[in-house]
Amino acid sequence: MRRSIATVCLSGTLEDKLEAAAAAGFDEIELFEPDLIASALSPEQVRDRADDLGLTIGLYQPFRDFEAVPEPRENLRRAEHKFAVMERLGADLLLVCSNVSAAAQDDDELAAAQLRTLAERAAEHGIRIAYEALAWGRHVSDYEHAWRIVDAADHPNLGTCLDSFHILSRGSDPATIRDIPGDKIFYLQLADAPELVMDVLQWSRHYRCFPGQGGFDLAAFVQHVLATGYAGPLSLEVFNDVFRQADPQRMAIDAMRSLLLLEEAAGVAPLPPAAPLSGYAFVELAVSPDAAAPVERLLIAMGFRHAGQHRTKPVQLWRHGDTRILVNHDGEEHPRVAAIAVESEDPIRSAGRAQHLLAPLLPRERGPGEAELSAIAAPDGTSVFFCRTDADGWLTDFLTAGPPGGGISSDVTGIDHVALSQPFDFFDEAVLFYRSVLGLDLQPPGERATTEGLVRSRDAHNADSSVRFSLTVPVVGDNGSERQHIALASDDVLTAAAAMRDRGVPLRAVHDNYYDDLLARTDLEPETVERMRGLNVRYDDGLLHVYTELVGPGLFFEIVERGLSRA
Amino acid sequence: MRRSIATVCLSGTLEDKLEAAAAAGFDEIELFEPDLIASALSPEQVRDRADDLGLTIGLYQPFRDFEAVPEPRENLRRAEHKFAVMERLGADLLLVCSNVSAAAQDDDELAAAQLRTLAERAAEHGIRIAYEALAWGRHVSDYEHAWRIVDAADHPNLGTCLDSFHILSRGSDPATIRDIPGDKIFYLQLADAPELVMDVLQWSRHYRCFPGQGGFDLAAFVQHVLATGYAGPLSLEVFNDVFRQADPQRMAIDAMRSLLLLEEAAGVAPLPPAAPLSGYAFVELAVSPDAAAPVERLLIAMGFRHAGQHRTKPVQLWRHGDTRILVNHDGEEHPRVAAIAVESEDPIRSAGRAQHLLAPLLPRERGPGEAELSAIAAPDGTSVFFCRTDADGWLTDFLTAGPPGGGISSDVTGIDHVALSQPFDFFDEAVLFYRSVLGLDLQPPGERATTEGLVRSRDAHNADSSVRFSLTVPVVGDNGSERQHIALASDDVLTAAAAMRDRGVPLRAVHDNYYDDLLARTDLEPETVERMRGLNVRYDDGLLHVYTELVGPGLFFEIVERGLSRA
Repeated sequence: MRRSIATVCLSGTLEDKLEAAAAAGFDEIELFEPDLIASALSPEQVRDRADDLGLTIGLYQPFRDFEAVPEPRENLRRAEHKFAVMERLGADLLLVCSNVSAAAQDDDELAAAQLRTLAERAAEHGIRIAYEALAWGRHVSDYEHAWRIVDAADHPNLGTCLDSFHILSRGSDPATIRDIPGDKIFYLQLADAPELVMDVLQWSRHYRCFPGQGGFDLAAFVQHVLATGYAGPLSLEVFNDVFRQADPQRMAIDAMRSLLLLEEAAGVAPLPPAAPLSGYAFVELAVSPDAAAPVERLLIAMGFRHAGQHRTKPVQLWRHGDTRILVNHDGEEHPRVAAIAVESEDPIRSAGRAQHLLAPLLPRERGPGEAELSAIAAPDGTSVFFCRTDADGWLTDFLTAGPPGGGISSDVTGIDHVALSQPFDFFDEAVLFYRSVLGLDLQPPGERATTEGLVRSRDAHNADSSVRFSLTVPVVGDNGSERQHIALASDDVLTAAAAMRDRGVPLRAVHDNYYDDLLARTDLEPETVERMRGLNVRYDDGLLHVYTELVGPGLFFEIVERGLSRA
Repeated sequence: MRRSIATVCLSGTLEDKLEAAAAAGFDEIELFEPDLIASALSPEQVRDRADDLGLTIGLYQPFRDFEAVPEPRENLRRAEHKFAVMERLGADLLLVCSNVSAAAQDDDELAAAQLRTLAERAAEHGIRIAYEALAWGRHVSDYEHAWRIVDAADHPNLGTCLDSFHILSRGSDPATIRDIPGDKIFYLQLADAPELVMDVLQWSRHYRCFPGQGGFDLAAFVQHVLATGYAGPLSLEVFNDVFRQADPQRMAIDAMRSLLLLEEAAGVAPLPPAAPLSGYAFVELAVSPDAAAPVERLLIAMGFRHAGQHRTKPVQLWRHGDTRILVNHDGEEHPRVAAIAVESEDPIRSAGRAQHLLAPLLPRERGPGEAELSAIAAPDGTSVFFCRTDADGWLTDFLTAGPPGGGISSDVTGIDHVALSQPFDFFDEAVLFYRSVLGLDLQPPGERATTEGLVRSRDAHNADSSVRFSLTVPVVGDNGSERQHIALASDDVLTAAAAMRDRGVPLRAVHDNYYDDLLARTDLEPETVERMRGLNVRYDDGLLHVYTELVGPGLFFEIVERGLSRA
């Protein structure tokens, strides 16, 4: 099926939008009228630019407040102006939204008659009309109602346009879409939205998102539409405050990724399925050699040992049993998570899926005899590797520098999760990326207060929770600070924290007031709470955990014990 | 009356919050429990710090999910923990919010009995309980309901807490507050909110604002409460995503300003009334001498003439008839609006009101014989002067440098308005500041799409519209760009624009598509539209206007003609 995107989804000038849509692989666009009005390009120039880029102008939109008015003359005059513009654009489908004005009458016969007249006029220009119910239309706010009017008007140049937001936001049953003949559905607009309870107009204008980023079941919705025989494009029409200011090229790729996932979910077009994952092969930190000492001291104090040196690159392998952290000295002053490697049952398939989902494949310099690892770039700049440590031999790229660590304690059993703060403009993109490329299950959004403001989080994990990500973003704007942490798993965080404290790991202080409150609000044993107090260990919903102090401005470690039975 | 603020209104650590509240002149605080739990200070240290700052801890809050449960023992145990903390804090009033948990039963007798028990226990510690209906309480969501339960429980240590948000957000009638005995109202929490239709919990947690920044009639609300004989504090409790990340010192001053205005509006405490304003004395631009040439070229092309030079400062007076613009060479590379001077009937009274409203008075260096002008600093850094040009003789500070401008045309009749973009974190503060200090009427918020994203605006003007401000802010986060413009008034913008074009004023291009759409959507005469097209003149709701190109990265001029009868 053809893939389309409305220009209102993207920021920038109309040229920027067209270029971004074409670069992301869209076949056509919906031209949002204000984008044309603001453009320096004439309609003919827009047509030529779209042609050059291989884009069709599939829909011109919106034409408002047309039908069911006492005196249609002025509206028909207005329509003739738009038909003229559309002819210059080479666009042959006009979206008419249900009337929201006070002049609109609650009269379906009048609406049908006037829409029929409009379709007749349109036909003279080779133009067709797609009539859509806005969720906040004055008298027509429901897709079935809009279809009844279209059916009554009965003109070959008049059909309906279905918009998932307008239908699902009202809680309408999309199953009766199947009763509409597919050839009378002239266009299909798709948008997701987070589950908010708010005025539907505000919800629509500000908080729509791409499929898979919100709470609607769009796969089922699309299946209902396809069951009618609809063969037109799948088109994204998303109004979102953040998307409107973000880089249009990135947004267009994010949009295409969401559409590919929706096509997979709806059975329209398959993707290489995600290969099962079974934990982390390694996490790689990057830091300049000058600034590496604090990171290395912390690793040593946490029980890691410098176990290997890469044959050709300035990369150290640190181990704590089978928990591996790489320290890449080709980094900057502030240490950060540069790469995450997951164990994949089929790294080639994982990388193939990622590429189909438009993840940029990272070029890799490889020395003679070194293992080939597939790596992609996540939206936040983190590299993601797909490995099979037992089979692909990447470990042999490292020359042994010492015995594996962990001899002094077995308190760390692996990597529990990696938490990465995201740039404000690209949070939804990052969530969709990690989830789709790695095939993770998304958890409901969370929110917590910090002294710097509210922070939103989305967690995602694979089937057996051996790979977990936690993505965070400030709720209001970007505060410019990057926070990343690596959470190490432990079977006994109190013992681990005590051992680390004794080895000089700086643990982030938790204040007495916290433990006094813990005694009040939980039935943890007082002696457990006293042990936690002495070790700066926190308790949250069955999870015991402790944080190290920051190493650099934005990086720290956490030790996590899950499934606590003490409480 | 005592003035109080909840610590949740402010960002930072608890120490930051206490210091900010004290510096802004509050008498007491509501201590939000999570702020204590996150604090390194012991309760005794918090008490001492508050003492040192002259602050009482008027309320400890919130205690949740207490009443009407089948088995109260655990909740009473929890309460005893909190009583102990409160004794250490020296706080003697605990806020209990109505139960939201699934365990709560719809049983007012049970609720009253358990609250009575709680009050008895509290009395043993010298503590009182203020029971409040949350708008989203499971069974108790209305203040009258909460009061009935308190009345039935009938214990001297049990009263009610009224919160304007919980009452007004539900559309409850606040008039029946008058039926509650004033001595049973233990606390009064005040918050405003914009008029949004959304889930009340989300609305409350993210979008509250200070009185006067939203849409509630808080003056009437406070009058109902005072009619009961309530003599406790007026306390601000505002949850707001932006306030939570903004500078706490500024926020606390903004909060106090809002409370002072509310006290004025409710008749609690008067302020010096705003003096009538009658237009602009001048607008001052600041720019470094090196970068002044483009500004001066533009002024000349717009018909301004260099008419005077300040006796002691590097400030030029430019005139176009009685329209005055100062160019201050003690500025930076990018020209910006540094000061706005309004004509006040009583500049001393204007400055007095501003000072009462905590506007920082600007120190002024004055040469011998120079006029004294009162100036204050607005939140965005702009200086605001109060003048009486005919009486205070500030113009005589300028040595004549040439004849007044405007000889070549009379197309500019004055300054119509000044538009200033605001820092994201301080938009509500700025709106309240300009409105309250200058005594302006606020217009409903507006919103428009630009290629860089959505922009929100608030306009305000005085009674005869001779002083108008337009304040703008990006809807999502700060894009870092400052935009300011000075709008000049004209009786005939088409003639003015033609004259300016002929004199070489670079006018910002408006594209043909705009005029084609104008012909479609308005009944402007085609020949008028053609004249507009040739001059880049726009039409919006009875307003004809034209923009100059930018001079520097963020400054431009506009020429405005209002009350258009052509359309």
